[in-house]
Amino acid sequence: MEKLNNQIIGLITDFGARGQHYVASMKGIILNINPKAVIVDIAHSITPFSIIETAYIIKSTYSLYPKNAIFTVVVDPGVGSSREIILIRTNSEYFFIGPNNGIFTNIFDSNEISNCIHINNEHYFNIPVSKTFHGRDIMAPISAYLSQGVSIDNFGSKFPISKLVDFPIELKKISNTEIRCTIQYVDEFGNIITNIKGNFVFLEEGAEMTIKTKKQKIKGKFVKIFEEVFVDSLLFIVGSTGFLEISKNQGNAAMDLGLKVGDVIIIEL
Amino acid sequence: MEKLNNQIIGLITDFGARGQHYVASMKGIILNINPKAVIVDIAHSITPFSIIETAYIIKSTYSLYPKNAIFTVVVDPGVGSSREIILIRTNSEYFFIGPNNGIFTNIFDSNEISNCIHINNEHYFNIPVSKTFHGRDIMAPISAYLSQGVSIDNFGSKFPISKLVDFPIELKKISNTEIRCTIQYVDEFGNIITNIKGNFVFLEEGAEMTIKTKKQKIKGKFVKIFEEVFVDSLLFIVGSTGFLEISKNQGNAAMDLGLKVGDVIIIEL
Amino acid sequence: MEKLNNQIIGLITDFGARGQHYVASMKGIILNINPKAVIVDIAHSITPFSIIETAYIIKSTYSLYPKNAIFTVVVDPGVGSSREIILIRTNSEYFFIGPNNGIFTNIFDSNEISNCIHINNEHYFNIPVSKTFHGRDIMAPISAYLSQGVSIDNFGSKFPISKLVDFPIELKKISNTEIRCTIQYVDEFGNIITNIKGNFVFLEEGAEMTIKTKKQKIKGKFVKIFEEVFVDSLLFIVGSTGFLEISKNQGNAAMDLGLKVGDVIIIEL
Repeated sequence: MEKLNNQIIGLITDFGARGQHYVASMKGIILNINPKAVIVDIAHSITPFSIIETAYIIKSTYSLYPKNAIFTVVVDPGVGSSREIILIRTNSEYFFIGPNNGIFTNIFDSNEISNCIHINNEHYFNIPVSKTFHGRDIMAPISAYLSQGVSIDNFGSKFPISKLVDFPIELKKISNTEIRCTIQYVDEFGNIITNIKGNFVFLEEGAEMTIKTKKQKIKGKFVKIFEEVFVDSLLFIVGSTGFLEISKNQGNAAMDLGLKVGDVIIIEL
Repeated sequence: MEKLNNQIIGLITDFGARGQHYVASMKGIILNINPKAVIVDIAHSITPFSIIETAYIIKSTYSLYPKNAIFTVVVDPGVGSSREIILIRTNSEYFFIGPNNGIFTNIFDSNEISNCIHINNEHYFNIPVSKTFHGRDIMAPISAYLSQGVSIDNFGSKFPISKLVDFPIELKKISNTEIRCTIQYVDEFGNIITNIKGNFVFLEEGAEMTIKTKKQKIKGKFVKIFEEVFVDSLLFIVGSTGFLEISKNQGNAAMDLGLKVGDVIIIEL
Repeated sequence: MEKLNNQIIGLITDFGARGQHYVASMKGIILNINPKAVIVDIAHSITPFSIIETAYIIKSTYSLYPKNAIFTVVVDPGVGSSREIILIRTNSEYFFIGPNNGIFTNIFDSNEISNCIHINNEHYFNIPVSKTFHGRDIMAPISAYLSQGVSIDNFGSKFPISKLVDFPIELKKISNTEIRCTIQYVDEFGNIITNIKGNFVFLEEGAEMTIKTKKQKIKGKFVKIFEEVFVDSLLFIVGSTGFLEISKNQGNAAMDLGLKVGDVIIIEL
């Protein structure tokens, strides 16, 4: 990668509002090394330690950024342990830095990986390295040096793609009309985002669909836009990130149905 | 507008903490088109779909920014429906992009509008355009092209100012000493911001005022600074955005009075 | 300070999610004066008016930033009153702007101060100055002019270091094995950050420690990394900001123990 003045570093963490200063610590380290880095907050309100949410956030955002963008992902319940910190380069020329704990599953699944490095060259670390904040002491400085054009081979040794941790989540056709799937994300509006890809839903607009949870079975209309149903009515829709979503028009479906990320549900088409 | 290296694009949404990645999706699109855009987060914790709050946020911030700043506002309950997406240019040389649903009421009311365009030229959209996220697929790319100096006439057809949706909120003198008004915003400190302009309050410092709600009638002092009353005492003050506010010195007035945005109250001067 | 193109201004406030537009107001003022300022959000979810948290946030972040960075701190319960707004320059070449109410205690304690100015030259203010938002009307413009290379002597008169407000928090050895200390911060993971410096803890890895509160007495292991104890077990650790922390591996210690910032506890080593 050539040196660029406006190299983007996107940050993804589970630090939350009360951990904004942890993000700021990473930004300080980065700007110290590369004052011209363009740092973007991608998401910081991931549920603590949620691999599912992190994998979803990565998948739904990275390819919208210019080539050469670097994504530094600090969702790291095993910080300080033997889990590796890795750097992934994709065929489409994006870079990812983070722990090898499943958060890169969606990059892995799409056969996108071109190179993978186990980051272990302390020369590029913030010294002394703490045992509890590798985001600040390892991932931030590596991102900054990478954004300056340092070749990825300098950061460590080659890491076999076969050793990348995969984090599969339930998705299975269980009859001709039923799919068992997993909730990947719930947003601020209460939209429930499943892991069923939109192009697997061959229904006509207006058709009836059903969601079955352990406690209930609820019908709704499959629509293209929210306004096709009354305010506060349940609907099914292929959302903006390409997955089937369960929503209420101007209401909060997740709250009303009592569903959360990781829950396995059955969709009847 | 000439092409500028540091063109500001301010983002206003109701995406909330759990929708920060939606904002990041817009930023990706913008930086892909104009890597030198200076993107600023203006407000993202607007109550979902609240037109009142959005209009208030716009009014209280935009004129502090340099001329030519662009404000992209995605509070859009009607996304995908027939509501238009518009671009407004003001006489004071600011630009606003967003749905025609009343969020621009305060710009409209101050006769600030110079031009208005109905954005409908797909040439500048992110293709394919989703039905549920026009912030990402229409407003973000239009903002980016505008920040690069593309003339506004390219983005669509002229839109008559008379068709802009107005969203009036209750404000009425009901006797010589009483005004019925609306709560426009409640901030993190619990300050209650009414829609009574400060220059309509002709009281002397220290005078007594009263707030009447459906349930209660409470007196407080009209002050210039919080410290004029005891900690946790109710006070009336002309706030930093020019409106009459009801507060408690180091306390939370909104929580204690049980009031929220949209509530209509009576102020006795 | 020479004029720099990429001068960093870090913002620290207690404005919270609902006050993000107040931060944006400050950014507008800054960008109007210095369009090339690099503005960084350090922390905005400080508990309203908490001097302890603010002092901790400052201490744990500033020195990670490049020299000449400016930190503008708006945690200001006495806004509008006679408390001074000051500008501090440290021996290590950082700048701090904010009210003289104790938030700079940790800078003060480390004998870091080189110069101190009482900001009172209205020539550099945003006119008219409100009585309730000096962050916008005084601190933001001063930060911006400082980032442009205006000499600090222009902003006001010399302020004696002896008049800086100190805000000491309880920290006392009460027996050979017991320290009474104060909780400085609780983060999103529920980690409880005390004010005991890590280099005062001479225990071996794996040793037992105890926390005593008014209601309870709980034992845990002193560890170097979270994974040394089972998930949800209590542990003691020297955290990433150099202080002794009380945590649970992948659990929420603060919630489970019912502790919050400002609480005084006893640690038995």
